[in-house]
Amino acid sequence: MSEIANPDDARELLSELRRSIDNLDAILVHTLAERFKCTQEVGRLKAAFDLPAADPTREAEQVARLRRLAHDAGLDPEFAEKVLAFIIQEVIRHHERIRS
Amino acid sequence: MSEIANPDDARELLSELRRSIDNLDAILVHTLAERFKCTQEVGRLKAAFDLPAADPTREAEQVARLRRLAHDAGLDPEFAEKVLAFIIQEVIRHHERIRS
Repeated sequence: MSEIANPDDARELLSELRRSIDNLDAILVHTLAERFKCTQEVGRLKAAFDLPAADPTREAEQVARLRRLAHDAGLDPEFAEKVLAFIIQEVIRHHERIRS
Repeated sequence: MSEIANPDDARELLSELRRSIDNLDAILVHTLAERFKCTQEVGRLKAAFDLPAADPTREAEQVARLRRLAHDAGLDPEFAEKVLAFIIQEVIRHHERIRS
């Protein structure tokens, strides 16, 4: 970024970065949509075979793995864990709705 | 899922779904890592040119677009908006740390 010397160049670079962010957000939305398709099927399966909605062992493994992946990708593992916790919380709410 | 009649089949399908969820989570982590690289550069740019950390117009556009994308992909738009809000909040915190 050392070559950016004036506000016009800064605004142009900002637009370019925002286009990348928009592309990445589209990936996030579509990946979340696909993930929800999977967890909805997990939810139906758990409800049909009366398995518990939450699974602490599986969740602990997921968190440990995601923290490793985040660390290797240069992403703050705390942040990755918080986002996953938020998603899992929402998934459990969905599962409880299916069950009830 | 109508063909799943016994607990063994259910467990096998559950493992398969969990492998897909793990793959999708790896996509999420790597996409978030790339998104953070972009927003960190936006943060440096905003700090260097003294632009405000938050940008309500841009954020409103992002939310509207993501809700459309979520709806088209069969994902609950409320959920997509909550996840994005969580990510943006974290990004603003990062920007404020860079500035201070």
